[in-house]
Amino acid sequence: MAWPNKNKDMLYRRVGNSGLHVSALGLGGWLTFGGHVENEITFNCMKQAYDLGINFFDTAESYAGGQSEIVMGQAIKKFGWARSDLVITTKLNWGLANGEILINNHGLSRKHIVEGTRASLSRLQLEYVDIIYAHRPDRLTPMEETVRAFNHVIEKGWAFYWGTSEWSADEITEACGIAKTLGLIAPIVEQPLYNMLDREKVEGQYQRLYTRCGIGLTTFSPLKMGLLSGKYNDATTQPPPGSRFAESQDRFASSVRGDWENEQWAGNIRKIRGLSTIAEKLGVKLSQLALAWCLKNENVSAVITGASRPEQVVDNVESLKLLPKLTPEVMAEIDEYLQNKPGQDPARQD
Amino acid sequence: MAWPNKNKDMLYRRVGNSGLHVSALGLGGWLTFGGHVENEITFNCMKQAYDLGINFFDTAESYAGGQSEIVMGQAIKKFGWARSDLVITTKLNWGLANGEILINNHGLSRKHIVEGTRASLSRLQLEYVDIIYAHRPDRLTPMEETVRAFNHVIEKGWAFYWGTSEWSADEITEACGIAKTLGLIAPIVEQPLYNMLDREKVEGQYQRLYTRCGIGLTTFSPLKMGLLSGKYNDATTQPPPGSRFAESQDRFASSVRGDWENEQWAGNIRKIRGLSTIAEKLGVKLSQLALAWCLKNENVSAVITGASRPEQVVDNVESLKLLPKLTPEVMAEIDEYLQNKPGQDPARQD
Amino acid sequence: MAWPNKNKDMLYRRVGNSGLHVSALGLGGWLTFGGHVENEITFNCMKQAYDLGINFFDTAESYAGGQSEIVMGQAIKKFGWARSDLVITTKLNWGLANGEILINNHGLSRKHIVEGTRASLSRLQLEYVDIIYAHRPDRLTPMEETVRAFNHVIEKGWAFYWGTSEWSADEITEACGIAKTLGLIAPIVEQPLYNMLDREKVEGQYQRLYTRCGIGLTTFSPLKMGLLSGKYNDATTQPPPGSRFAESQDRFASSVRGDWENEQWAGNIRKIRGLSTIAEKLGVKLSQLALAWCLKNENVSAVITGASRPEQVVDNVESLKLLPKLTPEVMAEIDEYLQNKPGQDPARQD
Amino acid sequence: MAWPNKNKDMLYRRVGNSGLHVSALGLGGWLTFGGHVENEITFNCMKQAYDLGINFFDTAESYAGGQSEIVMGQAIKKFGWARSDLVITTKLNWGLANGEILINNHGLSRKHIVEGTRASLSRLQLEYVDIIYAHRPDRLTPMEETVRAFNHVIEKGWAFYWGTSEWSADEITEACGIAKTLGLIAPIVEQPLYNMLDREKVEGQYQRLYTRCGIGLTTFSPLKMGLLSGKYNDATTQPPPGSRFAESQDRFASSVRGDWENEQWAGNIRKIRGLSTIAEKLGVKLSQLALAWCLKNENVSAVITGASRPEQVVDNVESLKLLPKLTPEVMAEIDEYLQNKPGQDPARQD
Repeated sequence: MAWPNKNKDMLYRRVGNSGLHVSALGLGGWLTFGGHVENEITFNCMKQAYDLGINFFDTAESYAGGQSEIVMGQAIKKFGWARSDLVITTKLNWGLANGEILINNHGLSRKHIVEGTRASLSRLQLEYVDIIYAHRPDRLTPMEETVRAFNHVIEKGWAFYWGTSEWSADEITEACGIAKTLGLIAPIVEQPLYNMLDREKVEGQYQRLYTRCGIGLTTFSPLKMGLLSGKYNDATTQPPPGSRFAESQDRFASSVRGDWENEQWAGNIRKIRGLSTIAEKLGVKLSQLALAWCLKNENVSAVITGASRPEQVVDNVESLKLLPKLTPEVMAEIDEYLQNKPGQDPARQD
Repeated sequence: MAWPNKNKDMLYRRVGNSGLHVSALGLGGWLTFGGHVENEITFNCMKQAYDLGINFFDTAESYAGGQSEIVMGQAIKKFGWARSDLVITTKLNWGLANGEILINNHGLSRKHIVEGTRASLSRLQLEYVDIIYAHRPDRLTPMEETVRAFNHVIEKGWAFYWGTSEWSADEITEACGIAKTLGLIAPIVEQPLYNMLDREKVEGQYQRLYTRCGIGLTTFSPLKMGLLSGKYNDATTQPPPGSRFAESQDRFASSVRGDWENEQWAGNIRKIRGLSTIAEKLGVKLSQLALAWCLKNENVSAVITGASRPEQVVDNVESLKLLPKLTPEVMAEIDEYLQNKPGQDPARQD
Repeated sequence: MAWPNKNKDMLYRRVGNSGLHVSALGLGGWLTFGGHVENEITFNCMKQAYDLGINFFDTAESYAGGQSEIVMGQAIKKFGWARSDLVITTKLNWGLANGEILINNHGLSRKHIVEGTRASLSRLQLEYVDIIYAHRPDRLTPMEETVRAFNHVIEKGWAFYWGTSEWSADEITEACGIAKTLGLIAPIVEQPLYNMLDREKVEGQYQRLYTRCGIGLTTFSPLKMGLLSGKYNDATTQPPPGSRFAESQDRFASSVRGDWENEQWAGNIRKIRGLSTIAEKLGVKLSQLALAWCLKNENVSAVITGASRPEQVVDNVESLKLLPKLTPEVMAEIDEYLQNKPGQDPARQD
Repeated sequence: MAWPNKNKDMLYRRVGNSGLHVSALGLGGWLTFGGHVENEITFNCMKQAYDLGINFFDTAESYAGGQSEIVMGQAIKKFGWARSDLVITTKLNWGLANGEILINNHGLSRKHIVEGTRASLSRLQLEYVDIIYAHRPDRLTPMEETVRAFNHVIEKGWAFYWGTSEWSADEITEACGIAKTLGLIAPIVEQPLYNMLDREKVEGQYQRLYTRCGIGLTTFSPLKMGLLSGKYNDATTQPPPGSRFAESQDRFASSVRGDWENEQWAGNIRKIRGLSTIAEKLGVKLSQLALAWCLKNENVSAVITGASRPEQVVDNVESLKLLPKLTPEVMAEIDEYLQNKPGQDPARQD
């Protein structure tokens, strides 16, 4: 694609089969913006991203208890960026756990989808977001209610598109089917965890979604919380004491801790050390290799990255230059180390 | 369910098959709020309810000539409760009989549903209610007009869901069928009279609605206007002179009076005296047993209670602790006294 | 029907199969309000009508070049009547012929239906009308465009219902069919010319519409422009010189003039003189008989009457008392004079 | 047609099968308004057009970088024309190339259609346009997304109709089919390039669209950028040095340049010189013949003309008088010179 843009090095991809384009790298506010990163630094990171051609900024109602949306909204206002130049996305499901009764202020009921969307827009100081995601499935609410509610949000003008995050292939298929049956707007995108060490869902379970439902992917956790930056490579048998993986701080960290307790830590570090030699040969950082590797998957519309310093944004964008160097031979060499490529779905015939 | 909430003793249930959650006990404004109860006391009752985890407040356009909605709206504003923490419901059909021409200001025409909803919202000082109920069926207006109008109210953002009250199973089935055929939003809930002495509709006639239409129930009159509090237990042959049942004040009281005239009063009091012995054994008030008994029915999403003193709210909420004690044996003992359990629909095969 | 209302003598009827109720007599602004009748008198007529229980006021964008709507809106504002107590209707098609280019400012295109509705509401100073009529068919605009546009007007909240005026049975059937196929809102009412001398359309051509499409009727011209008041009874062979029928002032007057030129004037006057003897026997004015006769047709929801003096309104409402006296025998006697009863559609089998 | 209008010489035609009427000549802002023509002159041209009965004014978001819409909006405001007397159309796809990142600010995604429409309305200072066109097809965005988005724009009240410009017959057929399947609003009009020298699309490829989809045409470039004004008739072998065709300034000019490079220039000039003799015989300018010739095609609703002087508008409107003189014999004589009449689609059987 060759649309005019300020940064010729940025890549833009369509989100699945939709008409929306995102920069291949997005900047996400998870764990950083409004949280442990100071607002001034968040502003600088977003400015750096925008200046390098990143148009896709992702947040969620639950990030930093709403502060992530607030600071992202402040940045957009502060820099006066044209709304049409931006793709702003947020996610609903977990509400805001602020100590009050929290019975309906979460989940994917019509009530929370409408109330949650409006609360997010208010924090973002925006009239609409580009994509509103269901942050997780809600297995208690009927899918029809959820699909109707997202359609309502779009008809109201509060969003242009909707998507899912960490839904199963069956759930996404059900949502698309109900939308088709009722003549409503179907989701265009799923936001899964995806990286060199976690491929089963994106490359296995979702296989049929891409062509059948036209779903695109905006993936998160490309570095598996830092593991794929190589900084734990010396801890060959267990997470280093004091690291996030040694103590279960959150669901994601504790899942890696689970790997360790199941004796997969050592195997993963072995793989990562192997990948480091490839990165070295290519003259890039391992984290850059990990980012670029995700984008070699043609079903990935964008990889969402985090940043707590503007320099990290620059580093991440640099990784795009690596794409042409990831030849079939290099990709095969990577697979040789990873040994985790999901097989083709045997029932697949399309 | 284990959502964080201030009162760990409150139970929350989904409204039928929808994604909306209500506290198992609701507080209703019928006959009390805006009527014979002073506003200051209404405020205190609502505050007490909210503090004990009740999130479901029910009213109607016709309650106290609109005053019930007005005072409920004042309470919500006064206490500054987050809108998303509340489930506010109102009902339309009877309009406001204020001496003027009242030709279209009632019923379930598109005109009254739209005008009535907006008038209720104005009295409640709210942008939307959570559920808007058809207070009674309107057999003259075509069902399609009614279903379209409630759908319109939801699309406009004036309500999230709609329900029915005291409709027949056939009418609810017709509404759901029309919604399905036209791709519109179906009702999620019915609000029937239900208590130990009036079971035929909920346990008999509605049997197939729960699974086929996904309808939930918010029931009213759990104490049959005080009869199930046991306070008439000494009047074994007829209503005590001067009581509400001795004089036909309204449709509900006069229906109980009808029981008496049909010589069912004595039989009912005999049943209630029997139930009183069970309550005594369980160490609770009969009224608490009567409330908890309703909630043992898994199709009941919430029981709507009235209160003219905050202490009554506390008493009602206490009754939830009784639920685990209502074992199959106790429930059988209750049925032994009641002798009114509806049979399974013989045509039912699902 | 027994809804509470200030005037126990007024009758109210549902508009066709809809949930909307109108007084059996409506007051229309054609040829009077905003035109040759002074505003103060219009106000008095409307006040008199309202006080006698009339809730149905009919106008059109083209009446008196928009002045009819303006003065009717002023009356509603002036008297502070509750909006829900009123059924206000207007009609679109002819636009406002004010000497400007008038290419799109008429007809039943989406453009004119939307622009015309908004202009009418602005003149009426109302947020919505109850029924918006297509004042005549527009055979150049596709029916789908027209049905979609009226549906749009209703979804926008600018009207509750839509109807037609002087459409053929085929056109109404087509509109209802398209609405059904596309899941849109169908018209509920037709506004035809109907009186003792013009029965073919209402009693003949429309026969199948009432049950098949649920269409109701609000009829106009019950006195055939004064002919059925008996005031031309002395002009047995031709219209009296100087009368409106002697000179073709408008389409309606000239159609009566056509009757005369076709030698039907004498026959009609003969019929009317016969009817006058029946009115005399019943102790009422011929005009009252003519009004009541229309309402004996159960498919007529309301008869729209004009008035240029409040006393005429009183006279018209008085005619309702005549209804019980129009026994089958009297109706047969009337038919004996009229000799114009349309036959049953031979193809009709429903 | 005989609608009252100030200029009896103007012709009005329905746009395809819709209820919208446009003057047979429209005034377009391409290459002139907001661009090389001063605003004061644009105002004068529009005033002249309006005074001669032209009601159709066409622009696009991309014309003169948005300035065309701005100046057209200023004229409408300045002259206080009634909105219902005007048919204002604009077009979306190319966005505004102003040097910024331009990833989503073009194309036919839901995002650009909504953002683009609102930006155009803001520049035009209008609440709605009459027709919004897709300025070109967008082969990357799914047709369903595009059709849904235009339907959304119409439901929001930002336009009454939508159309296409320079789409293939297949693309228009697909859009109409999707609209029909999903119950959405279909496009009513295509805006193609059409003139004596470019007939293949309109008379050939589109043949089946007119009856099957009810599509009308508003055509542009009737003079093929001046070629059909005859002013290049002396340059019999190649474009005169310094002319727009000698240097490729834009896509259209360079396509004519392509003709020349492919040795078609000489042949075209020969044809045009022949046509000039016909114009002379008829006593009109060649440009007037070229305009009138387009309108002889009954599928053409309007021909969009440009003007950089009010006199040109007068000249163009004069050409309408020529229509009755374009007898079958004259049309045959023209075809004799042109030798480019497309054949009937051999597969066509309707």
